[in-house]
Amino acid sequence: MDENCVFCKIVKGDIPSVKLFENDSVLAFLDIMPAAKGHSLVIPKRHHPQIIDVPHEDLKEAMLAVQKIGAAQMSALGADGFNVLQSNGEAAGQVIGHVHFHVIPRKKGDKLNFSWVQNKEEKEELERYCRLIKEQI
Amino acid sequence: MDENCVFCKIVKGDIPSVKLFENDSVLAFLDIMPAAKGHSLVIPKRHHPQIIDVPHEDLKEAMLAVQKIGAAQMSALGADGFNVLQSNGEAAGQVIGHVHFHVIPRKKGDKLNFSWVQNKEEKEELERYCRLIKEQI
Repeated sequence: MDENCVFCKIVKGDIPSVKLFENDSVLAFLDIMPAAKGHSLVIPKRHHPQIIDVPHEDLKEAMLAVQKIGAAQMSALGADGFNVLQSNGEAAGQVIGHVHFHVIPRKKGDKLNFSWVQNKEEKEELERYCRLIKEQI
Repeated sequence: MDENCVFCKIVKGDIPSVKLFENDSVLAFLDIMPAAKGHSLVIPKRHHPQIIDVPHEDLKEAMLAVQKIGAAQMSALGADGFNVLQSNGEAAGQVIGHVHFHVIPRKKGDKLNFSWVQNKEEKEELERYCRLIKEQI
């Protein structure tokens, strides 16, 4: 519990939320600033700033909830698909420092766009980055 | 194994890839069309089209690999953060029908944008969607 964290306050019930699902370790609720109708958030109840901080069991539970919510969005809303999006750090667009997974229902032709400009990378450059990253694993 | 799946062919070694990490159940490799230098993909080795199809143990292993890759990107590349992005269905931008997690390193001021227009939703509308989704959980 972080006393200044909005999501910890939601877990505790000090800030209201529209809850979809909860168990001992995770909570799923609707995003109040949704990208699409039904846009949901899944959080571990315990406070961890980023995904790399989350203990394995909590992470597993969060992902099982993501599966539940995504499947329910598909059948409840007639969604054609959904995105799971999780941001670590301000540079990545993280606003609230309590790890959260966005589960965003998608429909064909909606105006959302989470893609990027795709340019094929040179093999040598890929291998250079591979070496850099592998050294740190 | 799906014989027409590019990622299954990568797992099998029939298509080359620049591998970062692998164990019995998951493979991490560099995206050849990266959003940013070091952009990585984490996949369960077994063929499952979407996240809701993935057995719990494989999903857990995939997320542990996401943690490893994200942490390594941060320390190896001096990234300021990273995004985890996973798409289910063509409408969500999924191109290859074998579940995969994008792990995308971010730097302050990069040109990437995975956000959306944020408009506060009415409480009644949130509650309506909550009822719809909860019925399907």
